[in-house]
Amino acid sequence: MLFLFAFSVSLSRTQFPSLNMVTMGLLPSPLMCTHTHPRYLHFLSFSFPVLHKFKSRPKLFTKSPNAPILTIRNCTPITAKPSSEIKRHSTGSQPDEKLRKLRDLFSIPGVNIDAYIIPSQDAHQSEFIAECYMRRAYISGFTGSAGTAVVTKDKAALWTDGRYFLQAEKQLSSSWILMRAGNLGVPTTSEWLNDVLTAGSRVGIDPFLFSSDAAEELKEAIAKKNHELVYLYDLNLVDEIWGESRPKPPNKPIRMHDLKYAGLDVASKLSLLRSELVDAGSSAIVISMLDEVAWLLNLRGSDVPHSPVMYAYLIVEIDRAKLFIDNSKVTPDVMNRLKNAGIELRPYDSILSEIESLAAQDTHLWLDTSSVNAAIVNTYKSSCERFTGSRGNKAKGKSKMHDSSNGQSEGHSGVYKSSPISVAKAVKNHAELEGMRNSHLRDAAALAQFWVWLEDEIHKGVKLTEVEVSDKLLEFRSKQYGFIDTSFDTISATGANGAIIHYKPETESCAVLDSKKLFLLDSGGQYVDGTTDITRTVHFGVPTARQKECFTRVLQGHIALDQAVFPECTPGFVLDAFARSFLWKIGLDYRHGTGHGVGAALNVHEGPQSISYRYGNMTPLLKGMIVSNEPGYYEDHAFGIRIENLLYVKEVDTPNRFGGVGYLGFEKLTFVPIQSKLIDLSLLSTAEVDWLNEYHLQVWEKVSPLLDGSARHWLWNNTRPLVKQ
Amino acid sequence: MLFLFAFSVSLSRTQFPSLNMVTMGLLPSPLMCTHTHPRYLHFLSFSFPVLHKFKSRPKLFTKSPNAPILTIRNCTPITAKPSSEIKRHSTGSQPDEKLRKLRDLFSIPGVNIDAYIIPSQDAHQSEFIAECYMRRAYISGFTGSAGTAVVTKDKAALWTDGRYFLQAEKQLSSSWILMRAGNLGVPTTSEWLNDVLTAGSRVGIDPFLFSSDAAEELKEAIAKKNHELVYLYDLNLVDEIWGESRPKPPNKPIRMHDLKYAGLDVASKLSLLRSELVDAGSSAIVISMLDEVAWLLNLRGSDVPHSPVMYAYLIVEIDRAKLFIDNSKVTPDVMNRLKNAGIELRPYDSILSEIESLAAQDTHLWLDTSSVNAAIVNTYKSSCERFTGSRGNKAKGKSKMHDSSNGQSEGHSGVYKSSPISVAKAVKNHAELEGMRNSHLRDAAALAQFWVWLEDEIHKGVKLTEVEVSDKLLEFRSKQYGFIDTSFDTISATGANGAIIHYKPETESCAVLDSKKLFLLDSGGQYVDGTTDITRTVHFGVPTARQKECFTRVLQGHIALDQAVFPECTPGFVLDAFARSFLWKIGLDYRHGTGHGVGAALNVHEGPQSISYRYGNMTPLLKGMIVSNEPGYYEDHAFGIRIENLLYVKEVDTPNRFGGVGYLGFEKLTFVPIQSKLIDLSLLSTAEVDWLNEYHLQVWEKVSPLLDGSARHWLWNNTRPLVKQ
Repeated sequence: MLFLFAFSVSLSRTQFPSLNMVTMGLLPSPLMCTHTHPRYLHFLSFSFPVLHKFKSRPKLFTKSPNAPILTIRNCTPITAKPSSEIKRHSTGSQPDEKLRKLRDLFSIPGVNIDAYIIPSQDAHQSEFIAECYMRRAYISGFTGSAGTAVVTKDKAALWTDGRYFLQAEKQLSSSWILMRAGNLGVPTTSEWLNDVLTAGSRVGIDPFLFSSDAAEELKEAIAKKNHELVYLYDLNLVDEIWGESRPKPPNKPIRMHDLKYAGLDVASKLSLLRSELVDAGSSAIVISMLDEVAWLLNLRGSDVPHSPVMYAYLIVEIDRAKLFIDNSKVTPDVMNRLKNAGIELRPYDSILSEIESLAAQDTHLWLDTSSVNAAIVNTYKSSCERFTGSRGNKAKGKSKMHDSSNGQSEGHSGVYKSSPISVAKAVKNHAELEGMRNSHLRDAAALAQFWVWLEDEIHKGVKLTEVEVSDKLLEFRSKQYGFIDTSFDTISATGANGAIIHYKPETESCAVLDSKKLFLLDSGGQYVDGTTDITRTVHFGVPTARQKECFTRVLQGHIALDQAVFPECTPGFVLDAFARSFLWKIGLDYRHGTGHGVGAALNVHEGPQSISYRYGNMTPLLKGMIVSNEPGYYEDHAFGIRIENLLYVKEVDTPNRFGGVGYLGFEKLTFVPIQSKLIDLSLLSTAEVDWLNEYHLQVWEKVSPLLDGSARHWLWNNTRPLVKQ
Repeated sequence: MLFLFAFSVSLSRTQFPSLNMVTMGLLPSPLMCTHTHPRYLHFLSFSFPVLHKFKSRPKLFTKSPNAPILTIRNCTPITAKPSSEIKRHSTGSQPDEKLRKLRDLFSIPGVNIDAYIIPSQDAHQSEFIAECYMRRAYISGFTGSAGTAVVTKDKAALWTDGRYFLQAEKQLSSSWILMRAGNLGVPTTSEWLNDVLTAGSRVGIDPFLFSSDAAEELKEAIAKKNHELVYLYDLNLVDEIWGESRPKPPNKPIRMHDLKYAGLDVASKLSLLRSELVDAGSSAIVISMLDEVAWLLNLRGSDVPHSPVMYAYLIVEIDRAKLFIDNSKVTPDVMNRLKNAGIELRPYDSILSEIESLAAQDTHLWLDTSSVNAAIVNTYKSSCERFTGSRGNKAKGKSKMHDSSNGQSEGHSGVYKSSPISVAKAVKNHAELEGMRNSHLRDAAALAQFWVWLEDEIHKGVKLTEVEVSDKLLEFRSKQYGFIDTSFDTISATGANGAIIHYKPETESCAVLDSKKLFLLDSGGQYVDGTTDITRTVHFGVPTARQKECFTRVLQGHIALDQAVFPECTPGFVLDAFARSFLWKIGLDYRHGTGHGVGAALNVHEGPQSISYRYGNMTPLLKGMIVSNEPGYYEDHAFGIRIENLLYVKEVDTPNRFGGVGYLGFEKLTFVPIQSKLIDLSLLSTAEVDWLNEYHLQVWEKVSPLLDGSARHWLWNNTRPLVKQ
């Protein structure tokens, strides 16, 4: 699946503003900044995070009586639901009433603000969030995944990007101004606030919903008009209005992630983390990214759709650790596991008081300010100041652990740098890779069954909508061992819909598949042992020469990246041009990155590595990392092409090792045929034809044992070697 | 020629420390920083600027009686001298005596310092410098191109890099400590100063010899031990000792650069520059890079070897301009040209008093602090402060032109950003490109004559040294119309010497060419209409399979870069991996950038663009820019391979223009055969063979009209199409 780069550890802020700032409309939108580097514009144009719009309810799929070769040994509850069952979220009937109630709260004691910003985020910078945290959708009625609402005493405005203009027009009441981010002359959120508020106003936010870095940037931007950014710790004004009708926070039971899939036990992970803490001169760390908590504790949750995580914070100290979580989710087994690992439970809501008490104990807290929210970071900083102030000189004498070379702010005891778990999680161990390999083979079997079914239906002349097709794919996947959920909303797009990069078909409005058009399918599954993400583009009839040329050049880029060999420590962006060069030769390109990281039975999008034309991410590709390889080409109002495999980084046994370093390359995880019909063989070199034939041979050898009947026959037909004349 | 990236406009300091800092030993050396990114190490390993070691005296070559087709219509004095006539610079006999004298000066009134730093630079950050500015060589006796001397009251230390360890050992007296930069445990200059001086010492520098940025970094580094950086404006302590024996500053007459080569008259260039000043909110600019002064005024000089520039500063105001120069160099013709362009002359040494007076007039000065020296920048800043102080609030009211978004320091009226001339100069106009094309064809003719001569001599069994061969090449070049000088010291390297990337053969010690070894020749010429830079690697006998494989992979990288097509605004580093990918496949690489900018009848190395694995340089490649394409491979103690052409960036007429942007590619300037004998045809694709045959066809068509006799015959033989079996 395309990755929108919602997080980036080593992003240089001077070159690339943080995504949050852009999403929130705090920074100039692409079409406004005419002097901005064009490639930077490309990035911005598609940099809005895809947040799931709808609440996901677990649904256990009936297993097929003629189950596949792999038997189901595990009763992991399947949480996915078919697209057709997902109803549009109610927009509410009285948006004005909500605004009136919200504004009434502006003047209550302890609030006293002139404006309130409601972002899309939860407190953990998650890509997919629980319904109870969809405050922006509740207050504005606009349910799109990306958007920021800003309400002043007499105005209400909502920023979203080009993907959602039509939807927002329909969903917003007349009380709202739609800010079409990216259109000429549309101000950013902070520009607008600086414009409509009288100087020296107070702008309120819920500090849990902004990363510390994002809040700091916002603070600076509105300070130009002497506005003050007010952190409302104790009261989310939208929740206050939402009241009883607000959904309860999710409390699905947590499950254990088996050691045979995790590969490393919790004690070992904690021990490694603690060594890092000591090395960095810190004595505790706050982990707030949900996938980092899940990975570290070998636990998995069902609190949000698509990502097998649970809402929690974790604080790891040198000699103890505390998990802040709604303990109704904690089963006795999990409780036992946590106890054995020396992890105490605390209420989810008690995180700030714990931060205060750590500061009071002079704990040197490691905080990744790009992900940890402003509530936590600011509570820590202000508590430290209070504490230092009360201890006077004595405190100064103890500040020897401060190391200004770490980029820490002076005057605080914190270590402010990237979370050490990010890279540790990204580099997969043997068991994680094995789980990824196995789940990919089962996923490939489901896809083979799906494709033969789909081709048959189309050739029989059955009219199938994009959503029906997507639901059928889910049905095939759910029959596979260990299937839990889709790993993101399936992009099932026929014809021109394929050119809408983040198209999501809706039951009411989606198109019917057409044997005269290209069909793009980007989907993935969450399995008990791995996470998949694959895109294939096919034609059910006769593709045009133009479609074949574009498809072939996308394929050539895909092959070039797949085959790349590079020295250790090469950042991913160095390889990005390999995937584009064949398109560039004829003046084509695509406006998204080429590869994102993927978690092992975790989030389908994870950092810190990427393969992108965003040249700020210096994270090297390391042995064991997983990346997607997904070049594409999109012709507006016509068709979309994307070919995506997941790869893992491996050492290559080169005949030389110049510079004494190792050389790395990729090994494929995805084994699904690439449609030969779409290839213009005359454009391919002999080496490229050999690549394709070798790949299809592997697909046959690895996946055919999982298939029988028509699916096996389909696989045979679609993996035959091609011969260049 | 390989470019050492002595300047980089958009280099991010946080990722890549300034070159000066590294050269000066102020930053950790490559092998010391074990946690540094390996590719960053590669950059550091070869990042020392090549400064010419010897004084160059002009020498008019006798023109050959059987002159080639082009007749010599221009009496430009040829300033090149054969390598064989260049004697090693005297190391002086009494280094201890010099140190004693230097230390005596430490305590004189107005000096009062505890240490003095003597860098390699002149006041203009030039790559090639005049002998009178070679102070580090004079004081230390060490004549290598890169090094920094630091003298305290009781110690003297010299930092240089691995290329010069042996030479420095020979040349330094026992009073000096040799600091082998790059070796484990060797401190940087500032680390050493912080170690050997008692806290709160005074470290003196000549502020003319440090860019403002470099001086600021140094100041910060030694501030850790409370040392003060003392700017000695009026007295260079080494010059004081050097006394009468110090060579006079060069005063060769300046010549006019013909409009037919320059393409744009001085009035137009000044007018464009003044528009930029107005846009930036500045009212004057100080231009200190010598090639920028020469380019802007359409003048050329002979003050330093290889670069056709003259020592001068230029200050351009909105309504006037002043050239700070020794006016004995200014001929009546030049004087007239300057007068017509409204340019007044001022003594070279009066630059600082002019800066003071501009500050007093509240001039908003544009200063590129990465190149303008600390003397100028600091004089301006302190004068502004003095002036602001005396005017009090009134001055503040006038500061509306300050624009903090320009990255200016607060409290000064300056505009601190990259020189606008850098890009203007890098983007060649039609006439400049035409001059480059023409001079390259004449250069190619000289090379064809040279290669046929060399092959004949070798096959006759004549023993020729690397220096003799280099001298003979100069002889052939000097017969060509408009030849002036070599554009850098010729790298003529047989066998293992080819693996020493910046090898410079010396008459006394150089090797004899061997028909059993590879021979690498990297050379270039300064012509009246253009500057050339070409590398070819040849074998006079039978190359090994290993040599052929390496050569072929270097060639494949060269072809891939040559053929690249890319969207407008792509930074050069995006293309760097194309040139390496074929070597990477077998675990090979090279430790230098792939391409540097080249001036039009100007410096052989110019910025701001580059094609390199130094990913900090975000300068986009623009239509009209010139870059070298010079991948290589170096096998220590065995052989070196490099294939270098110059290219210019042109628009490519692609069938599509995705994103509405133009697509760019390259056109070759260099037309000299690539030795077929070294190619393993089995490794090349059909497209690569076609590229080679097409190139050789062009070489024949373009260069054969300039040749007759054996050279023409040689060209014919060496441009025959190859056929892949």
